[in-house]
Amino acid sequence: MALVPGQLVVVGLGPGARDLLTPQAAAALRQAEIVIGYSGYFGWIEDLVHGKERIALPLGEEVERARAALEQAGAGRRVAVISSGDPGIYAMASLVFEMWATLPPKRRPEIMVVPGVSALNAAAALLGAPLGHDFAVISLSDLLTPWPTIEKRITAVAAADFVLALFNPRSQRRDWQLDRARTLILAERSPATPVGIVGNAFRPGQTVEVTTLGDMDTAKVDMFAIVMVGNTASSFVGNFIVTPRGYLTPAGE
Amino acid sequence: MALVPGQLVVVGLGPGARDLLTPQAAAALRQAEIVIGYSGYFGWIEDLVHGKERIALPLGEEVERARAALEQAGAGRRVAVISSGDPGIYAMASLVFEMWATLPPKRRPEIMVVPGVSALNAAAALLGAPLGHDFAVISLSDLLTPWPTIEKRITAVAAADFVLALFNPRSQRRDWQLDRARTLILAERSPATPVGIVGNAFRPGQTVEVTTLGDMDTAKVDMFAIVMVGNTASSFVGNFIVTPRGYLTPAGE
Repeated sequence: MALVPGQLVVVGLGPGARDLLTPQAAAALRQAEIVIGYSGYFGWIEDLVHGKERIALPLGEEVERARAALEQAGAGRRVAVISSGDPGIYAMASLVFEMWATLPPKRRPEIMVVPGVSALNAAAALLGAPLGHDFAVISLSDLLTPWPTIEKRITAVAAADFVLALFNPRSQRRDWQLDRARTLILAERSPATPVGIVGNAFRPGQTVEVTTLGDMDTAKVDMFAIVMVGNTASSFVGNFIVTPRGYLTPAGE
Repeated sequence: MALVPGQLVVVGLGPGARDLLTPQAAAALRQAEIVIGYSGYFGWIEDLVHGKERIALPLGEEVERARAALEQAGAGRRVAVISSGDPGIYAMASLVFEMWATLPPKRRPEIMVVPGVSALNAAAALLGAPLGHDFAVISLSDLLTPWPTIEKRITAVAAADFVLALFNPRSQRRDWQLDRARTLILAERSPATPVGIVGNAFRPGQTVEVTTLGDMDTAKVDMFAIVMVGNTASSFVGNFIVTPRGYLTPAGE
């Protein structure tokens, strides 16, 4: 890739481990004149952005980050917005494009996305192969989405036997949603359904826990975790969770 | 990571572009004694596996690849199984773990997965931000899954307003499934719903098309494409598809 003046690139840094940051992401950061993002992520990439201008903002200031990035690119600069994981999955790409759309077409800077290894991919790798078949990804955060919409989605995919990947499962302020999700899924799935809980995948403090829908201790889950719930064919294999694609048990047999 | 004798690693190569293959994947390939995979992928990584023993098998011989990998690791070798995209998403991880489970526990080699940038992440990046909210991933291949199960899943997530990412949408032999999926989704969504069709993301021959559910020409779609269908809030912005997370239109407003 080549970043040009007046261009904005939204860069996926991957889950955190430096060896899961792609060469394309590293090149984008090296080429940027100014790097904008959540202050907590700069430590991951300090050598790549050393000496560059930066706008580091706290969690919660996503709109301000996107606005600053569009302003800087509009002023003719080469701008990188950093995002953990993949920018397209509950991260910065959507908001940057939404705000880009509010600009008059002539004032919209060139824009592109560098994909990354998402937390979804990272958590699945540590659990074995939980996403081996069709799956649904749902955020349990009702800060931006009405809770009834989230409930409807959980029930729909639980009934249709999708593997579920739950993002933002629990925080200090949002302490009941994961319990409620578990109850909704239990209405459609056995308590023996395998559940994997991965915290801080490929970061310091990484935790990987394998349990069941019936036994899971939701109080131990925090906002840095991803919760994976197997489908009716998922099973435990050693300390892993495996959802078969069907090669060994073909359709109709 | 460190690959040890008798260990098997399932390595995600990313979508194809070499600068989207992670350093962790490259390290795993360099450390392997023997590399096993679909013959078409070796060209991507020739410099990393030059001179190494390899077992390159055609499409369709997934079970043989997994069996060979387990045998080689069981014999004490350092084995890499290569997978395009992310190994956990419709790729080799699930099958390798399934076959690993059939071995007596004492004969199971050490096993790990190196996650990759999946075709999901790659296609989304090229379309802008189509996955900006909850989404479901479904394979339209009924070779391994009964078609009624696939239909049920499509209808469930279309009704619950998920973004849909459809893998394996169409091939020469499977030429009606995408039309049928479109009909099922149209029962729940407007014909104006944005659709993105990405072929060969980050590979030679890459194509990116933006259309609507009503206008999409399914005959042009092939087995290398991913089809993304927006939710009811998705919109076109320039040549991109953006699904808002809700920052600019908070819940309840």
